[in-house]
Amino acid sequence: MTTRSETVSECTEAELVARIQHHLPPAPDWLLTGIGDDAAVVDPERNRVEVLTVDAIVEGVHFDRAFVPPEAIGHRALAVNLSDVAAMGASPRVALLSMALPAALLLDDFDRIVTGLAALAQRYRVHVAGGNLTRSPGPLMIDVTLIGSVKRRQALLRSGAKPGDHVYLSGTIGAAAAGLGLLKEVVSRRSSVVSQQSPVTSQQSPVTSRESHLRDARAFERTTDDLRRATDDRRLMTAYLRPEPRVRLGVLLSRNRAAHACMDLSDGLTDAVHQIACASGVGMIIDWDALPIDPAARTWFEERGLDPLAAAMTAGDDYELLVVSHSRGGRRLAGVVRHAQTPLTRIGTCTEDTAIVVRSVREGATTVTPLPRGGYGHFR
Amino acid sequence: MTTRSETVSECTEAELVARIQHHLPPAPDWLLTGIGDDAAVVDPERNRVEVLTVDAIVEGVHFDRAFVPPEAIGHRALAVNLSDVAAMGASPRVALLSMALPAALLLDDFDRIVTGLAALAQRYRVHVAGGNLTRSPGPLMIDVTLIGSVKRRQALLRSGAKPGDHVYLSGTIGAAAAGLGLLKEVVSRRSSVVSQQSPVTSQQSPVTSRESHLRDARAFERTTDDLRRATDDRRLMTAYLRPEPRVRLGVLLSRNRAAHACMDLSDGLTDAVHQIACASGVGMIIDWDALPIDPAARTWFEERGLDPLAAAMTAGDDYELLVVSHSRGGRRLAGVVRHAQTPLTRIGTCTEDTAIVVRSVREGATTVTPLPRGGYGHFR
Repeated sequence: MTTRSETVSECTEAELVARIQHHLPPAPDWLLTGIGDDAAVVDPERNRVEVLTVDAIVEGVHFDRAFVPPEAIGHRALAVNLSDVAAMGASPRVALLSMALPAALLLDDFDRIVTGLAALAQRYRVHVAGGNLTRSPGPLMIDVTLIGSVKRRQALLRSGAKPGDHVYLSGTIGAAAAGLGLLKEVVSRRSSVVSQQSPVTSQQSPVTSRESHLRDARAFERTTDDLRRATDDRRLMTAYLRPEPRVRLGVLLSRNRAAHACMDLSDGLTDAVHQIACASGVGMIIDWDALPIDPAARTWFEERGLDPLAAAMTAGDDYELLVVSHSRGGRRLAGVVRHAQTPLTRIGTCTEDTAIVVRSVREGATTVTPLPRGGYGHFR
Repeated sequence: MTTRSETVSECTEAELVARIQHHLPPAPDWLLTGIGDDAAVVDPERNRVEVLTVDAIVEGVHFDRAFVPPEAIGHRALAVNLSDVAAMGASPRVALLSMALPAALLLDDFDRIVTGLAALAQRYRVHVAGGNLTRSPGPLMIDVTLIGSVKRRQALLRSGAKPGDHVYLSGTIGAAAAGLGLLKEVVSRRSSVVSQQSPVTSQQSPVTSRESHLRDARAFERTTDDLRRATDDRRLMTAYLRPEPRVRLGVLLSRNRAAHACMDLSDGLTDAVHQIACASGVGMIIDWDALPIDPAARTWFEERGLDPLAAAMTAGDDYELLVVSHSRGGRRLAGVVRHAQTPLTRIGTCTEDTAIVVRSVREGATTVTPLPRGGYGHFR
């Protein structure tokens, strides 16, 4: 039994490990030794190469506990890694979970973080084989190592793009950034309400009956619009809180040899375009007007006086895939899209010339401008 | 060129990654894709199972930058993981390095951390295949994932001890704890000197010639003792700052099938004894008088009024191996000790009865007392 005020500091490491194990499914055959020894022992998959990645999420840098619920923290910690493995065309298999926990972290929140991570792991049949728990004198940090496997020579690298190849983007961009913006607004509104509240409030005169009716009528008029809004808002916030990594798409692109190069957008589309172009030694023309920006995100950015495309292209947190494919690979890609049930939008072309440019059409005139580097950077 | 005051906040993630790569040797054949893609791609070793571990070191919990130089931080971050892989009898192979860096961390210190880690990696032919860098709004944290390989059925688990087996300990215990104590004393002495210094000091009358001669004579008398002390002190501090994981010993124990069970002492000997006994379903009799405590550490503890054995048994940071071996495996073990050039001391016996006890002889009388649990715990 956990009381609401119990913190992780009241537990031993072994007790916390036991709580994690409680959320994990039975170990698969290939996990020869799981949690509880100096290290995990795993039987590698035959005739496969391994894909290894590690990614950390840090409180105050990648998430804010004020508006990211514990389950979403756990979900995100694994999702960012699933996205990296997906971008290599590999099937995820085994994870290690390393957490640095502030002493004041509620045990209930700890459990919910683990629940969020375990639920996503189970959905993609990833097994948590081990990890590490330590105290943090500062922020909560979660470091997940993820190992996947893929057939040799089927790993999707950043370096395989060729001049003439077509450039595709899965899903849409901008939703996560708008969702994060929304969450921040909700929190700042909530805290300003709290700071405005005073003992006087409760002594205000009660609302009269007539005023109340008027308010009801106005509320009724706004209902349809509000409902749409609320649904959109929830979708945008979910895009930030529980990003859905493109695991199936990555695996199918690899199995069907449908991509020359692939990378995820963890640091934004602009960054990904530059990375693939640079690693492959090609240039790219990106069609500004083709970029699939989430409609609700577009509205959100516009209402705040921001250029939706510019904002969406440099925002992090969209765990979509940038895919480069042979110009005559359309049929293969169509098959992949059908099976993965993930839309792909053609957004550009690879060029011999190594310049990276954006092409847009305004009032019939085509303009081509360089796409400056400058995706999301953690340090600068 | 790095100036002394430059911090990591003045670099992009890509620039910091390039600085890490600068310290790494060329990639081995089996590393198909290294740093610079969404994930690393590694060819697994044939006919081997994989051993996976992750361990974090956190500033303020596992080290203090006031007395742990940057190279030692890097060394320790990898050493703790090498020790875990060694305790499984596996050969380490590939590492992932995840760092959370405070913005004010000097670029020079960052380079030195990487140098310390890379030097140890190279010594054990471990290749850093990838990782992650992020900003930390709090302490410096380094999370290392290490993957090793071992022949199937040769992994050394905690669960293989049998009644009648002999219990051994590599090297000695206590040195790291005493070294840490020494380092803390040096720092507190240094800071008390600084706080006592005032402008008046520089105006004090110069030391007279006679006083100076007397002081020289006394210093001369103390030289031999001081030198021995200084050497011991340095050795103790090194034991804490740059622990030497027992990689070769672990691998040889496994290859020669010379151990039934094995575990490292990262959380202290008492903890390890309990862990192996519990996982194997046996008890243990530990011979108090046989425990190999480091002589200089013994002195250090005694001078501070502490029971050296009690302190050394519960102290963390000794990266020795606790090894359980067949009672008739002495010849095999002797061969391993010779090749590993690491001493093993027999410290006890496994028993059918699951009690864990300490046996000591005082003035001819043998006393047997239970060994309470309570090794080093991170949370409580």
